[in-house]
Amino acid sequence: MAKAATVLLLLAIVPFPSHALNQDFCVADLPRGDTPGGYPCKPQSAVTADDFYYRGLAATGPTINPFNIGLSSAFVTRFPGVNGLGVSAARIDFAPGCVVPLHSHPGGTELLFVVEGTMAAGFITSLNNKTLHKGDLMVFPQGLLHYQYNLGNDTAVALSYSSANPGLMILDFALFANDLPSDVVSKVTVLDELEVRKLKALFGGSG
Amino acid sequence: MAKAATVLLLLAIVPFPSHALNQDFCVADLPRGDTPGGYPCKPQSAVTADDFYYRGLAATGPTINPFNIGLSSAFVTRFPGVNGLGVSAARIDFAPGCVVPLHSHPGGTELLFVVEGTMAAGFITSLNNKTLHKGDLMVFPQGLLHYQYNLGNDTAVALSYSSANPGLMILDFALFANDLPSDVVSKVTVLDELEVRKLKALFGGSG
Amino acid sequence: MAKAATVLLLLAIVPFPSHALNQDFCVADLPRGDTPGGYPCKPQSAVTADDFYYRGLAATGPTINPFNIGLSSAFVTRFPGVNGLGVSAARIDFAPGCVVPLHSHPGGTELLFVVEGTMAAGFITSLNNKTLHKGDLMVFPQGLLHYQYNLGNDTAVALSYSSANPGLMILDFALFANDLPSDVVSKVTVLDELEVRKLKALFGGSG
Amino acid sequence: MAKAATVLLLLAIVPFPSHALNQDFCVADLPRGDTPGGYPCKPQSAVTADDFYYRGLAATGPTINPFNIGLSSAFVTRFPGVNGLGVSAARIDFAPGCVVPLHSHPGGTELLFVVEGTMAAGFITSLNNKTLHKGDLMVFPQGLLHYQYNLGNDTAVALSYSSANPGLMILDFALFANDLPSDVVSKVTVLDELEVRKLKALFGGSG
Amino acid sequence: MAKAATVLLLLAIVPFPSHALNQDFCVADLPRGDTPGGYPCKPQSAVTADDFYYRGLAATGPTINPFNIGLSSAFVTRFPGVNGLGVSAARIDFAPGCVVPLHSHPGGTELLFVVEGTMAAGFITSLNNKTLHKGDLMVFPQGLLHYQYNLGNDTAVALSYSSANPGLMILDFALFANDLPSDVVSKVTVLDELEVRKLKALFGGSG
Amino acid sequence: MAKAATVLLLLAIVPFPSHALNQDFCVADLPRGDTPGGYPCKPQSAVTADDFYYRGLAATGPTINPFNIGLSSAFVTRFPGVNGLGVSAARIDFAPGCVVPLHSHPGGTELLFVVEGTMAAGFITSLNNKTLHKGDLMVFPQGLLHYQYNLGNDTAVALSYSSANPGLMILDFALFANDLPSDVVSKVTVLDELEVRKLKALFGGSG
Repeated sequence: MAKAATVLLLLAIVPFPSHALNQDFCVADLPRGDTPGGYPCKPQSAVTADDFYYRGLAATGPTINPFNIGLSSAFVTRFPGVNGLGVSAARIDFAPGCVVPLHSHPGGTELLFVVEGTMAAGFITSLNNKTLHKGDLMVFPQGLLHYQYNLGNDTAVALSYSSANPGLMILDFALFANDLPSDVVSKVTVLDELEVRKLKALFGGSG
Repeated sequence: MAKAATVLLLLAIVPFPSHALNQDFCVADLPRGDTPGGYPCKPQSAVTADDFYYRGLAATGPTINPFNIGLSSAFVTRFPGVNGLGVSAARIDFAPGCVVPLHSHPGGTELLFVVEGTMAAGFITSLNNKTLHKGDLMVFPQGLLHYQYNLGNDTAVALSYSSANPGLMILDFALFANDLPSDVVSKVTVLDELEVRKLKALFGGSG
Repeated sequence: MAKAATVLLLLAIVPFPSHALNQDFCVADLPRGDTPGGYPCKPQSAVTADDFYYRGLAATGPTINPFNIGLSSAFVTRFPGVNGLGVSAARIDFAPGCVVPLHSHPGGTELLFVVEGTMAAGFITSLNNKTLHKGDLMVFPQGLLHYQYNLGNDTAVALSYSSANPGLMILDFALFANDLPSDVVSKVTVLDELEVRKLKALFGGSG
Repeated sequence: MAKAATVLLLLAIVPFPSHALNQDFCVADLPRGDTPGGYPCKPQSAVTADDFYYRGLAATGPTINPFNIGLSSAFVTRFPGVNGLGVSAARIDFAPGCVVPLHSHPGGTELLFVVEGTMAAGFITSLNNKTLHKGDLMVFPQGLLHYQYNLGNDTAVALSYSSANPGLMILDFALFANDLPSDVVSKVTVLDELEVRKLKALFGGSG
Repeated sequence: MAKAATVLLLLAIVPFPSHALNQDFCVADLPRGDTPGGYPCKPQSAVTADDFYYRGLAATGPTINPFNIGLSSAFVTRFPGVNGLGVSAARIDFAPGCVVPLHSHPGGTELLFVVEGTMAAGFITSLNNKTLHKGDLMVFPQGLLHYQYNLGNDTAVALSYSSANPGLMILDFALFANDLPSDVVSKVTVLDELEVRKLKALFGGSG
Repeated sequence: MAKAATVLLLLAIVPFPSHALNQDFCVADLPRGDTPGGYPCKPQSAVTADDFYYRGLAATGPTINPFNIGLSSAFVTRFPGVNGLGVSAARIDFAPGCVVPLHSHPGGTELLFVVEGTMAAGFITSLNNKTLHKGDLMVFPQGLLHYQYNLGNDTAVALSYSSANPGLMILDFALFANDLPSDVVSKVTVLDELEVRKLKALFGGSG
């Protein structure tokens, strides 16, 4: 970045509107906390080339139980260069037979690219299950419940692209990993109360 | 509207930027079909004061079964004056003991106002059930599953305000009123397959 | 919120992208001050279910004189859960004969729902006065001057929904509760200067 | 445009994503009518360089009476290249002593640049009258009432920039060039009814 | 889609707000032409599951000469399900030694994921060249010039995600595949005029 | 501002929703640093009328070398009243024969108004060079490279209007005022390496 400093110096010497240049990006200053529009911007002098690269999707991420899914994410908290730019990504790895359970992204549409393997995927409001192969794309519109599961004999890997803060609501966690009384969950879902109790036990909920 | 014509005439005589005036609103020209940003605009000459009024929320709307909920909506298709303005409303009536089942709005945050009665409401990602009385407000952020149920001895009535196209995903309809094979629904929800079959029968799904 | 903590703990144990969950909402941290996109977000650990409920519209709000209107509002400063979600609400109560004087909302479209009573309402750019009854809706597009007045023998109550920061410009306050010289106000409005002076006196302006 | 065709041909021969190039702009296809997001796009083959130029602000525009203001505008209906780009402009000419009466732009913030002359300007919600000289800028936030008047001995000229559809609500036209009964206008403005009648006569209203 | 029809029928029988459901997505009706906000929506009855899948990125796309780059794109014109959802993708294949020349996306930030190989990449406003390996991400903020070139001995493959209409401006095509006189290009770029003429010949420009 | 205080006091006495009024604007509190949506808002009590005026465009701005262009800008850092309002402006002065070299605005469309003189202007993606006279407008869509040069015998002056943070990427500075190795710049631009070295020397780059 030695030269970057020189360029900025040059721009300072020619009395240039430095703000205009600064605003081409707004790298997140994470410790100052989030706003609805994104994190405050780091000072220009603290920005480095590394803020715009992220190596965390090159390997399988940590496991989400009980689904045995590896999830590695590139959200602004790990990849501060995407702040304010409206993009994020995640990598999902799942072994043969494994399922990415029904979930939605309240804050963004997802574009899924199959990096390895073969999987079934669908969003369940009236549109059927599809088989996706390596290189295929599928789009899941914002807020619609969808799922994937591995159809092959090898680990499947997908790259998921979305807006800045897609959020993630895994249906089972939402329904069962809470402390609402089981009769209330049963009442508002029409699920059998015994089924609710069984799944609350599985997902760590109480009530 | 006789005078409106006169005013527009006046503005035409003084060669005024008529477009500027027209763009204060864009009443939907419904037959021409929707776009991602809303319906095309009716010609100014076809706009009437009635485009900006809607009387359909004054009475209980038609029933959604099997929940026995009355739902009356003021979306752009019925209330063309809201086109492009980013607002809509709906009225929900539910008898004692009735439940507005778990649902979400993929396309908008909901602000709920209790017009009559007492109800329980909640969104179930970690935040508890609340009791709402007449005049109370509750906000349900975009895409989060939430529910209401009547706690009183009389019909409860709520007014729900949201963005232009909030959408509506009733969880039971999404999960069970489809033709995905029951074993697939079971696999992606972790619900027992027998439970899935039972609810598919109730909600009119097959598979 | 004990359970909420447990759920979050669960999510922390399964190494989950906590940011994704956090971003489903951004409850306002009011003391840190506003930004054009809304207030900074409270830390997740400080969010409670109460942030999403507001009871202040259940009763008549304080009076705006000299119009004798009760106005109770649910803006982000009182209802921090709406921060960044683009919604707000207000309740207006006005006795028989009372008027909500000509005003506009520079920052948002208003959707008005009649909770009680009968009122006249209109926005005056070429569209006539309408009579609204209990349960009726009317939409006032952003920035257009509009008014309501009570036509009945009982207090009328309306609920007004809008975007996050609709703003409020009451025409009489704008025109007369200022210290611009009366001749300037007269010049830019074509109102008689004596009329301006009289109304400046009524609304507390000077000049 | 002969060469442009060649370039497009080249891009067609190398099988290039023509959509990507097309979407750099969306010149308005005016006869197809407006949508909330702007006019439909002309086919790329019909776009010419002239769509991006506008010569109509080089001269004084037609007069708005009774204010004796020349107003020339560069909105999308006259300058189709700005479609979807969120910008527009207008030129205002006013002779010594003339006033641009109190008005607001419901759909956009205005940035005013003084091309010639000296003028007073202000928006009247609590902020005073200012004197502007050649080369000065003033910003009028969206929806706030504001005015200008010529303070010099020569014609003043201002260039006004705004968003795509700022709209224009001239207060006097809104209040008086309508057919609302004068007693209603008086009631909702607190203006004297005789004053209302007098100004209705001046601005061509009835009632 | 047989069942989908049934579900919609069910929803029609229970008098449901069909618009709310429709607006979860807006599949492009391409023949009707684009608007600044996207294509008009296909009728719900014409939507099929295939509208949300795209198989065109599974293989190398057609070649862009003289750079010998394979480019395959998933824009709305080929993948109508992304209409109005703000996402698109493209796949780039380049042989050892090949270069994706300096270019920018006027309409969107790009998030690049390395599917295969090793490449250098950078955006040249003061931030250095980086080496990217399989699985790495890099973000190129909207409108900034950037490049990639293959550093390995095998074909490199990258997946590029962006907003709905990122656009593409390849610097050499912009500078040299036009018919501006060479002295004008030289004047506005400070490039030597002979160099301009040489590159105009290479890229098919004239003048 | 004495009266402004009185008005606010009046509004405080009549228990008015002060937030609604505050949100009509959000004057930048610059020392607190930027966010993607703009600067935090100054407290209402610190806002003065001067925040909405800017006199810095009345005179030629400082020179950008080696182009001998005077550039004076009215961005939020100098004109805090435009914060969050989505507008900015700049003034460009250039002597006979001078060139505003090829550049783009990654973050906004530019609307250019010719204040004085005659100039050539164009954006070079397939659309020709145009001659602009005093009073003409031209629009340069977001992110497209464009230029102007003086065609007359006197200094030309242009006023440029754009969104809040248009940014500025001068092509020569981007290509040559950096420390990328010259062979890399040559590789990604197809420019001759000697030409690159020569221009790196001129623009202060190294490598």
